[in-house]
Amino acid sequence: MSVCPVQEILQPLQSLRLIDPHTHINPHQAASRTLADILGYHYYTELAHSAGLAKERIEEPGLDPREKVRRLVPWLQRLENTAQYSWLLEMSQQLFGFEADRITEANWESLYDASLKCMSAPDWEQQVLQKSGLDQVYLTNDFDDRLQGFDTSFYVPCLRTDDLVFHLAKPTVQQRLQGATGISVTDAPSLRDALGRLFEHFVAGNARACAISLPPSFTPASVSAVVASGLVLKAFSGAELTGEEQSRLSQFVFWMLAEFCDQHQLPFDLMIGVNRRVYEQGVYQGQDLFDSRVSLVQYRELFNAFPGVVFPVSVLAETSNQELVSFAWIFPNVITCGHWWYSNIPVYIERDTRARLQAVPATKQVGYYSDMYKLEFALPKFAMYRRILAKVLAEDFVGGRGWSVERAVDLGKQVLRGNVESIFGGLSAGGL
Amino acid sequence: MSVCPVQEILQPLQSLRLIDPHTHINPHQAASRTLADILGYHYYTELAHSAGLAKERIEEPGLDPREKVRRLVPWLQRLENTAQYSWLLEMSQQLFGFEADRITEANWESLYDASLKCMSAPDWEQQVLQKSGLDQVYLTNDFDDRLQGFDTSFYVPCLRTDDLVFHLAKPTVQQRLQGATGISVTDAPSLRDALGRLFEHFVAGNARACAISLPPSFTPASVSAVVASGLVLKAFSGAELTGEEQSRLSQFVFWMLAEFCDQHQLPFDLMIGVNRRVYEQGVYQGQDLFDSRVSLVQYRELFNAFPGVVFPVSVLAETSNQELVSFAWIFPNVITCGHWWYSNIPVYIERDTRARLQAVPATKQVGYYSDMYKLEFALPKFAMYRRILAKVLAEDFVGGRGWSVERAVDLGKQVLRGNVESIFGGLSAGGL
Amino acid sequence: MSVCPVQEILQPLQSLRLIDPHTHINPHQAASRTLADILGYHYYTELAHSAGLAKERIEEPGLDPREKVRRLVPWLQRLENTAQYSWLLEMSQQLFGFEADRITEANWESLYDASLKCMSAPDWEQQVLQKSGLDQVYLTNDFDDRLQGFDTSFYVPCLRTDDLVFHLAKPTVQQRLQGATGISVTDAPSLRDALGRLFEHFVAGNARACAISLPPSFTPASVSAVVASGLVLKAFSGAELTGEEQSRLSQFVFWMLAEFCDQHQLPFDLMIGVNRRVYEQGVYQGQDLFDSRVSLVQYRELFNAFPGVVFPVSVLAETSNQELVSFAWIFPNVITCGHWWYSNIPVYIERDTRARLQAVPATKQVGYYSDMYKLEFALPKFAMYRRILAKVLAEDFVGGRGWSVERAVDLGKQVLRGNVESIFGGLSAGGL
Repeated sequence: MSVCPVQEILQPLQSLRLIDPHTHINPHQAASRTLADILGYHYYTELAHSAGLAKERIEEPGLDPREKVRRLVPWLQRLENTAQYSWLLEMSQQLFGFEADRITEANWESLYDASLKCMSAPDWEQQVLQKSGLDQVYLTNDFDDRLQGFDTSFYVPCLRTDDLVFHLAKPTVQQRLQGATGISVTDAPSLRDALGRLFEHFVAGNARACAISLPPSFTPASVSAVVASGLVLKAFSGAELTGEEQSRLSQFVFWMLAEFCDQHQLPFDLMIGVNRRVYEQGVYQGQDLFDSRVSLVQYRELFNAFPGVVFPVSVLAETSNQELVSFAWIFPNVITCGHWWYSNIPVYIERDTRARLQAVPATKQVGYYSDMYKLEFALPKFAMYRRILAKVLAEDFVGGRGWSVERAVDLGKQVLRGNVESIFGGLSAGGL
Repeated sequence: MSVCPVQEILQPLQSLRLIDPHTHINPHQAASRTLADILGYHYYTELAHSAGLAKERIEEPGLDPREKVRRLVPWLQRLENTAQYSWLLEMSQQLFGFEADRITEANWESLYDASLKCMSAPDWEQQVLQKSGLDQVYLTNDFDDRLQGFDTSFYVPCLRTDDLVFHLAKPTVQQRLQGATGISVTDAPSLRDALGRLFEHFVAGNARACAISLPPSFTPASVSAVVASGLVLKAFSGAELTGEEQSRLSQFVFWMLAEFCDQHQLPFDLMIGVNRRVYEQGVYQGQDLFDSRVSLVQYRELFNAFPGVVFPVSVLAETSNQELVSFAWIFPNVITCGHWWYSNIPVYIERDTRARLQAVPATKQVGYYSDMYKLEFALPKFAMYRRILAKVLAEDFVGGRGWSVERAVDLGKQVLRGNVESIFGGLSAGGL
Repeated sequence: MSVCPVQEILQPLQSLRLIDPHTHINPHQAASRTLADILGYHYYTELAHSAGLAKERIEEPGLDPREKVRRLVPWLQRLENTAQYSWLLEMSQQLFGFEADRITEANWESLYDASLKCMSAPDWEQQVLQKSGLDQVYLTNDFDDRLQGFDTSFYVPCLRTDDLVFHLAKPTVQQRLQGATGISVTDAPSLRDALGRLFEHFVAGNARACAISLPPSFTPASVSAVVASGLVLKAFSGAELTGEEQSRLSQFVFWMLAEFCDQHQLPFDLMIGVNRRVYEQGVYQGQDLFDSRVSLVQYRELFNAFPGVVFPVSVLAETSNQELVSFAWIFPNVITCGHWWYSNIPVYIERDTRARLQAVPATKQVGYYSDMYKLEFALPKFAMYRRILAKVLAEDFVGGRGWSVERAVDLGKQVLRGNVESIFGGLSAGGL
């Protein structure tokens, strides 16, 4: 076998400018203000807590940022082996000029100060975007987000719908819905009016996707109008729903969202498999896990009912990836999308990337998204993905199939960026 | 680590002549007549459809073969990354003298014409068999196949039983059963007589296996004579069965098949895990998927009850492979068999092969079958498998265990061919 | 990519002395007496049986050891490909001076005689321990083990509790419990007293863990005192429990064990996923298999309820490894532990090791245990693991992350030995 030209493939992928199709960026404060914003990312707090740090030490109200970092740093030594730590280190080296290969109790303050200096620059946000090569950043917006005060052609809105589907019976959610739409929901028709208003608002605000995360137990289904009508009436009258009623209501609302996606030609991002609050005493955002006993067969009725809706699907369990590959191979409206959360470590990314490139049409794969909360994370996360992608392209396509480096690079570019544009609309308008 | 002698191992494996132990070849028309027979293979139609081609464009009644290919070709560009496309390309190069590395709108007609010229040769079938190194090809025969008009010592019959187990309540199946056996089934004893007649017919026709594909929900179980008797009476009286009754009837018929396999010393190929018609609007043969929530523990009663029946087991989900390996490691009558359908891509074949070679007795592994509908596919599919097998043997056995190349090649030959003969009977008679 | 310094990393790992944190060693007869003790290990008898050897041939009462080996040897040829066989060969070469690379009908007697000579030496046990580099060996003790007549600071006791949790309704288990504790159990309080007595006995006897293997269907839960009380009364009155009652009783006893682990600061080893007696006609200890449809979410209530108990978790199905990684990443009290049984082959060890090193804090990983019944197996089993660990460290950390060899070796040592000491107490006292 010839030498694998990983570096030759990696270089053009590294210089490719990107669109990040799924993040949790707050467009009003996109970049970090101190290192505490970085180390406060749940990937670090939950790992430090798992390694022994008491939750109270870092969730103390009013905790000073520098003090928070001081308390976290001693625990980093136990995490140096993790991929998550490697993001922190690469980011510190690339963005803050950090030169050591470990962040220790002896050197963290210099890193803190150096990063603070960077972050204090008035154009820090632009610097990060420039160094990260980002042309667009997709957001995750609450349904009652006003979508004002930021450039929606750069920070592209995305309508996140977990609250509507799973928490609509809560008074706070109902109040937020009324506040956002001006519609006082009482029954199924007025609920439809309200949701329609949300879609109009988001589409007018340049939204490019509707999105939701789903527990392993969820199975989409259409619900008869009669049943649905009764459930909506009950939920909005303030009565408590049984578990079964809540499930049916969730199915009804979810199905209606798919109808609106169809009507507005919005892709519907499905993030399948998360169990919320499994570790109830965990740190903020570090409480969720999953159950690998889930199947995309649960989505069969949905995928059949909405051939006109594009479903970019993320799966949380790596054991679900072959199903995702196979469903995307068969269903025209199913797209493989990124490497989500617990599957976002090299060993799983590599294998899942390999399977997708071997069996899903090249046009139907969104390679990666950062899922970041702060802009600084795009750089190291995409760097990790680009290295793995280059390795797979070199081994499987140049080595295994005799492709030229140029052709392998083209496939990499399509998966990294081209498909994001064709599937979500990208910088210009356009469909799949 | 020393240089891995992949090529040294691959060469003798490539020149080994083969028996293909599972195909869907029509022995009356085994080779393709035009390139439309090749591109009409569901692997291409379903991927092209998934990538955007409307089903109606290629399933139009009376569509001319050349026109069908013309409509498919533009979509191939989106599939060039897939393993399935690599089979098409390797076949075109090896069998039809195609010299380009892509099939495009600019060059497809020359390929069409070149392949047509090849296929028009009166001895094309023999040419393909010779170039593919095939000594025998196992078939998949409907239970009412007359098994006449072809050489059953080359095209070896196999009794496929899906219809009997899952569709026996349908009038058409009952009529076919009566037509094939001359027995008018009314109750359990006459059903047993009819199935016995089928087995006698197939065994007399040189059948070497009984086979069935099974949904994830199926659990074999023996059914009491009283219950079974009532179900058969009901099914053959034309009354509609409930879902539960259908399940019990399926179990009853399946169990009887195992009894006949025992009596006739026929291996019973179990292909476990397919959900039929998940995508109902899909192209022909491109509608089935799977649910990875299945376990071989469901087959525990069967494997215990029939120690004298050899069960070559294929699993559809790669997540089932470790169970298959472990069951074959423990149960004397469980054989690992091939790499089926959605698991038949390099990333899964490699890992599954590795696990099987590391933990299942060498005598209990059937390495590969093509599952082909047209003879031309054996060459590229087996070529893919041979390359992966050589890689695993080189890395794990020569590199990792210090074996000689010769010894590694012997293991490869056993898995590729030797075991097919010892398990199914091969060219000569014989048992495990 | 630079040359991967696997050998450089492997060497210091090979010379590291070990603590084996889980075995089935009988401390009164720790080493083998004849080669029949080696070949009688279920890994060989079950594989030989699976390959065709009749169970009766090797389970004949009063069978002479040499004759037993004579009957097994001809079947070894079919198993030469397996990892299990490679342990046998490496052990024979390293411990008995065997020089051939296959054990055959022609040379087995010389191996038998050579090993017999070794094993007959009065200090053979010490020789094996020395050559294997073992500083401590953890046991698996029945709850009524007197823990006398051996050095518990070397052969460290571990309280195995399967019988208590799953078979407490059996008269023999109840009698053993009374015999061990002197307490006549009649109700829940006296059961608690008896279990408390067991824990005191084991802790006084230097036990460092409580352990249990669990079927895929088991879900820990607290049981109300009223319900529990009725169940214990019924079970100890000799009445037969329903399946549902047995399940609740199992949950009750299991939960009480966790409470005692909490009280005594004992780690609770959970070995999750085994189905017992799936192949009922199998050889001794060769009847168990698994069902990959299991989730650690089933343990959510337990992990939340006992934050003070350390749970080293082993999973039987490789498909459970990502859940284990993720739960250990989130829950402070969940530890990844070894590579169990059907997952203890190189292909799975490598991938699981990779995932754990990439995503679980370095302090929370117990790399390996031998699970051996005879001392001779530690050497080849740990050798296999060390080679894989060195490969992963070289590729992922030195190659992929730019670590120095020294730093990679340190991580390897921590996983191989350091964590065993910090988690279980090791040679000195101490907690996590």
